[in-house]
Amino acid sequence: MKLSALLTSAGINIALCVVLLLLYSVLRRQPGNVNVYFGRRLAEEHRRRQDSSALDRLVPSPSWILKAWEYTESDILSIAGLDAVVFLRIVVFSIRIFSIAAAICIFGVLPLNYFGQEMRHRNIPSESLDVFTIANVMQGSKWLWVHCLALYIISVSACILLYFVSFFQHVTPFQFVITFLLYHCKTAISLHYWICPNPSHFSVLVRAIPSSTGEPFSDSVRSFFTKYHSLDYLSHQMIYRTGKVQKLLNNAEAVYKKVVNMKDITIQKGCVPHRLRCGLCGGPSGSFQLYHNELDLEMKNSSLNDIDPCIKEKECAAAFVFFRTRYAAIVASKVLQTSNPMIWVTDLAPEPVDVYWSNLWLPYRQLWIRRIATLLAAIVFMFLFLIPVAFVQGLSQLEQLQKMLPFLKGILKKTPVSQLITGYLPSVILMLFLYLVPPTMMFFSAIEGPISRSGRKTSACCKVLYFTIWNVFFVNVLSGSVISQVNTISSPKTIPMQLAKAVPRQATFFITYVLTSGWASLSSEVMQLFPLIYSLVRRHVFRCKSDDPDGVLSFPYHTEVPKLLLFGLLGLTCSILAPLIIPFLLVYFCLGFVVYRNQILNVYCSKYETGGKMWPIVHNTTVFSLVLAQIIALGVFGLKDSPIASGFTIPLVILTLLFNEYCRQRFAPVFDSLSAQDVIEMDRHDEENGRMEEIHEQLQSAYCQFPLRMASICDHEGDESSKNGGPGESSSPTALEITKSQPAAATAAAAANPTVRRFSISRLHRAVASLSTLIAIQNRNALR
Amino acid sequence: MKLSALLTSAGINIALCVVLLLLYSVLRRQPGNVNVYFGRRLAEEHRRRQDSSALDRLVPSPSWILKAWEYTESDILSIAGLDAVVFLRIVVFSIRIFSIAAAICIFGVLPLNYFGQEMRHRNIPSESLDVFTIANVMQGSKWLWVHCLALYIISVSACILLYFVSFFQHVTPFQFVITFLLYHCKTAISLHYWICPNPSHFSVLVRAIPSSTGEPFSDSVRSFFTKYHSLDYLSHQMIYRTGKVQKLLNNAEAVYKKVVNMKDITIQKGCVPHRLRCGLCGGPSGSFQLYHNELDLEMKNSSLNDIDPCIKEKECAAAFVFFRTRYAAIVASKVLQTSNPMIWVTDLAPEPVDVYWSNLWLPYRQLWIRRIATLLAAIVFMFLFLIPVAFVQGLSQLEQLQKMLPFLKGILKKTPVSQLITGYLPSVILMLFLYLVPPTMMFFSAIEGPISRSGRKTSACCKVLYFTIWNVFFVNVLSGSVISQVNTISSPKTIPMQLAKAVPRQATFFITYVLTSGWASLSSEVMQLFPLIYSLVRRHVFRCKSDDPDGVLSFPYHTEVPKLLLFGLLGLTCSILAPLIIPFLLVYFCLGFVVYRNQILNVYCSKYETGGKMWPIVHNTTVFSLVLAQIIALGVFGLKDSPIASGFTIPLVILTLLFNEYCRQRFAPVFDSLSAQDVIEMDRHDEENGRMEEIHEQLQSAYCQFPLRMASICDHEGDESSKNGGPGESSSPTALEITKSQPAAATAAAAANPTVRRFSISRLHRAVASLSTLIAIQNRNALR
Repeated sequence: MKLSALLTSAGINIALCVVLLLLYSVLRRQPGNVNVYFGRRLAEEHRRRQDSSALDRLVPSPSWILKAWEYTESDILSIAGLDAVVFLRIVVFSIRIFSIAAAICIFGVLPLNYFGQEMRHRNIPSESLDVFTIANVMQGSKWLWVHCLALYIISVSACILLYFVSFFQHVTPFQFVITFLLYHCKTAISLHYWICPNPSHFSVLVRAIPSSTGEPFSDSVRSFFTKYHSLDYLSHQMIYRTGKVQKLLNNAEAVYKKVVNMKDITIQKGCVPHRLRCGLCGGPSGSFQLYHNELDLEMKNSSLNDIDPCIKEKECAAAFVFFRTRYAAIVASKVLQTSNPMIWVTDLAPEPVDVYWSNLWLPYRQLWIRRIATLLAAIVFMFLFLIPVAFVQGLSQLEQLQKMLPFLKGILKKTPVSQLITGYLPSVILMLFLYLVPPTMMFFSAIEGPISRSGRKTSACCKVLYFTIWNVFFVNVLSGSVISQVNTISSPKTIPMQLAKAVPRQATFFITYVLTSGWASLSSEVMQLFPLIYSLVRRHVFRCKSDDPDGVLSFPYHTEVPKLLLFGLLGLTCSILAPLIIPFLLVYFCLGFVVYRNQILNVYCSKYETGGKMWPIVHNTTVFSLVLAQIIALGVFGLKDSPIASGFTIPLVILTLLFNEYCRQRFAPVFDSLSAQDVIEMDRHDEENGRMEEIHEQLQSAYCQFPLRMASICDHEGDESSKNGGPGESSSPTALEITKSQPAAATAAAAANPTVRRFSISRLHRAVASLSTLIAIQNRNALR
Repeated sequence: MKLSALLTSAGINIALCVVLLLLYSVLRRQPGNVNVYFGRRLAEEHRRRQDSSALDRLVPSPSWILKAWEYTESDILSIAGLDAVVFLRIVVFSIRIFSIAAAICIFGVLPLNYFGQEMRHRNIPSESLDVFTIANVMQGSKWLWVHCLALYIISVSACILLYFVSFFQHVTPFQFVITFLLYHCKTAISLHYWICPNPSHFSVLVRAIPSSTGEPFSDSVRSFFTKYHSLDYLSHQMIYRTGKVQKLLNNAEAVYKKVVNMKDITIQKGCVPHRLRCGLCGGPSGSFQLYHNELDLEMKNSSLNDIDPCIKEKECAAAFVFFRTRYAAIVASKVLQTSNPMIWVTDLAPEPVDVYWSNLWLPYRQLWIRRIATLLAAIVFMFLFLIPVAFVQGLSQLEQLQKMLPFLKGILKKTPVSQLITGYLPSVILMLFLYLVPPTMMFFSAIEGPISRSGRKTSACCKVLYFTIWNVFFVNVLSGSVISQVNTISSPKTIPMQLAKAVPRQATFFITYVLTSGWASLSSEVMQLFPLIYSLVRRHVFRCKSDDPDGVLSFPYHTEVPKLLLFGLLGLTCSILAPLIIPFLLVYFCLGFVVYRNQILNVYCSKYETGGKMWPIVHNTTVFSLVLAQIIALGVFGLKDSPIASGFTIPLVILTLLFNEYCRQRFAPVFDSLSAQDVIEMDRHDEENGRMEEIHEQLQSAYCQFPLRMASICDHEGDESSKNGGPGESSSPTALEITKSQPAAATAAAAANPTVRRFSISRLHRAVASLSTLIAIQNRNALR
């Protein structure tokens, strides 16, 4: 591939980006798109933005960038939570490290590579890209120490940055929050998440409650905890599971809900039959209305007596146990309860909105099998994915492709076509295939049985990350040789050498990958293509209300974090081998910083927190990338017959691994749980303020399997899954399914609160009614 | 190697064993050896056994075997602790599994192997051993399903046995003990270890106490724990470290002790110059006496004022913190104390006798580096050991050796010599080299920085195990091919095939290894050769008092457990390939059962407990052996062109791994810590009995860095290390060094108790005096 092809590709992408960003700056100011581009704000502020003049709305401007810049980190912490701060810190970290790498590699390494061999240089645009890689350096060159030095500087600065980010990561937010908590409690309303006593800090999820004959689970829990944690035990709340009948009812309820929703849409505007109501068919909507009226009629007649007697509360062997203090909850979650670790399993409870209800009643004994099964499934999926990747890889090596498919020769000879195919098509195809991955991994992670939605997202994040690194980096690198020789992975000794041969050769592909996948994904992220189209269709085809303040998505960390880390890996491994990649990466990260800031501030809502659990993944991956880069460099120096450079690289590998081990010791435990000191301080503060009683009261109703309360969240989650859009996501049990599946349980849970109970029963009742009505209508239709 | 050679080897070993066992049955009844063969009893009962008549003493008899049989498991638990029970259960487990394997393989697999190919069989003794292995089965034989079935039966029965041993392992002793504790508290004096409230259950070792300017560590500890654990914190005890001056003093004290000891020996019998006093030189002992008198004189003149003012208490950043209840201690040890995991590090304290004092003042920040460094050192040591192993391996392949060293041809042609060399010599050489390993590994484990001596032993046990399996099994198997072809390990795909080719070929070596290393090590174990010689030399050459009730060794689990596991590995991997090994193994384990029972009951003293931590090692190793056996079988079936047998083996491997994962979930946490339920029950029981006050009082003096109290233990440990005898052991900081190194600290620790204080100061004083005396004598001698 020549520099001109690369520049073509870059040109296409830059143009595309600019067009999309300008389009965004226009679209965001259209009042109709406010729920697409300002979802979070809309949800929070519950008011429409002021309309600007029509002309203003159509002039592209970069003002949104400036607006995104205005916010400080603590603003973001208060608006979007810890996860958003961590995510932005990942971006800043990448910008810093690649700025250093750019300075060193562009001015130090690139000239060395370019003038590495004595040759007549053509004019630069028509130069092959290989001239800019380390492949152009002479065998046994004395200048390889510059590469080695560059590697040292990059590694050391990466480690230092990593350490300080880790350090401030866990010191700043926590300490900051606690200081805040203690001294400025009343002043910071926005620090809601941290300052308001979090019910999850007082609660422990107990699973695998042993079943003793006759005694209900609830009594077992009460007797166990009053016996062994008598001082701190406050109360508990059982978790209920649904049977077959309930599931049927829930489905019916879902149908009912949809129909009611339809009624809202149709009847809202004085029930005038509107020609555009259903833009696709344009038919009259009388039948819908009829059905609805029938439903209404039936519902009025039905009474509580209709409820099937077999709809009973069905306790399962899990419960939330509430403690008087945060410390007691942490203690109960950390200590082994009985001498059989498979019963009375305690974990700190997730936050109420974060609970993954449908996984809570999974038998605890199943979980380890589920974990192994999903691991195997994910691995199989990774290997099945080799097929499209191998195809893509073939495209970037035109000569090979021409040999294999000779009929393409005619087309491929035309320069622009060949440049387009080598420079652009492979990445686009790969990117399209990669869209399938996150939903699939999310599905696997849901099956695994996490108790929280944030846990599911973190687990999916890891899976997507491994998948991406394996399929984008390793397979592309190794399959470069696979087409010519099959047996590359068979001998472990030669892997560094193989990598050293293949990585510089594949560097051009990686550069185009950064251009297409990276830049394009950022512009499509800021454009919010899918939600935009969805919103347009909703508004103009189905004539829905344009405002849906509940339909705010949560940030897709499980797709964005692996993306950032993959580009970090590509950058670090290619930095000294093919420094041309770094400017493109730097542009990507800078653009990413602005775009993600904007998205976090305006579009996404933080519904649940992982508590910064993304950071250990980032830390480990960065160290892995560094070590991989060093091993590849070792191989390259070996190939280039430079024993000194190889010799100096080995201690660097060892030092990097030692650094990682130190960080594991120093930082890893903090991400697992809060410390005794912190929680005791919080407890004391609440006690001194006399807020404990209030907190204990709130605890009783914090966790609720009751659907009404969750309904609003379900709707978002539903939207979110429709955005993620893959086949996996739709079959994963999202919150929608969860909440739908436990109305009966919810009645029990809400038994303490009469209002809630009434609500729940009437809801159940409605569901039964709707089911019977639907069946009646079906039968009537069948008879006609 | 022919069957006759094997039988020669077996004959030699059987004869040797019988002779040694008979010799043992005579020697154990000699009154002079009572401290060698009845060390534990002597130490416990503090009385001499009744002498039997002279004739009785000289008639060999197997009565000791019967005596060893008499004891029940609960007797052994009460006499020798949980570790001994676990160890004997490992032996019983091995006997059971190999009985099943013997039944199947001898009657099912062996005939198949023998008649596997159509050939004229010679008479059985002159048959080559290869005829009895799977190598003799025809290519593509239809009978290989029998091997596969045998593998299934062995694997399944091993897993079932493993599960039930694991199950009763942790259920029986703990539950048993707790039941005992609750209901029969007064009746079982011998269950001392379990029933007497163990101070370690109430104590937590705190390390990495942060140093605040000006404030001593002790105040930091008090303020931290009164602040955050105010309800349960009882008191604490600092740990002291010694400076240079103290070390000098301690060395002086050691010299002083030796000289005083010498005086005891010489002056004891009325100070008559005895010709045999020093059996080696027979010279007059006047000079010793003179020195001693001088010492005595000097000591009388010295007074407390001589003590160097720089001998100050030097607190280090570690302390034992005592809590009011066991539960509080467990909680404090499990919960992260502050948001910096590198300060206020808490662990459950080891038992007082188990504390490894000299490691307690290691800076906590160093430990991870120490762990990595010792790991690397152990790996390097493992690879350096390849040299003698390769040599040994060469000996068992005579033809190869003859090619390499042609001048040996003449000697090697003689049948008995060749049989001796192939059948006996390799194992003996290997065994001698292996004697170096445990002390070295013990040394590495000590450097690692464990806080308890049992922790050091467990860690050494793992290291010795990996070492043994690598060097005896893998290197022998793989170096069989190394002599002919170097590049075996380079490709991972071919490893099963390589193993499948090599293991049956090396099976004969393993059989002889069982004979020599196994049987011989048991007879030398029961004979206690080193202690016997040491005792003889001590009594007859140095004329020491023959009775030394303190010099009882503790059981060398770190050498014996890996030995058992190695034989288990050999048995499982060879069982269906070369079934001839099983009878020999079965004899080994049965003999081992009697011998170890006898040794545990009579010879060794259990000074500290690991709490059954040996069992997880055994469990994992057994599963590893099973999977290895299955993989090798897979390779063999592949080589023999039997796709059905290979196909059926793959699910077996998967099932075994799943079983292991289940057991890890089910049993692993129990070995880490006691459960809340158990400790709360214990606490309640003590509270109801009103014993808590008493326990709290005892706690104050339980942990004591004070040397006098430890002196008796030091002496054993010294003996033990001299028995282990390697160069590593002597340089490892044993208890002798520990206690010697902290007299100053001890004074501080004992400050509360005036008697103790007086003792300690006088001891210190004596040490200083002896130092100055010695220097004076040296100077005087130099001037002469």
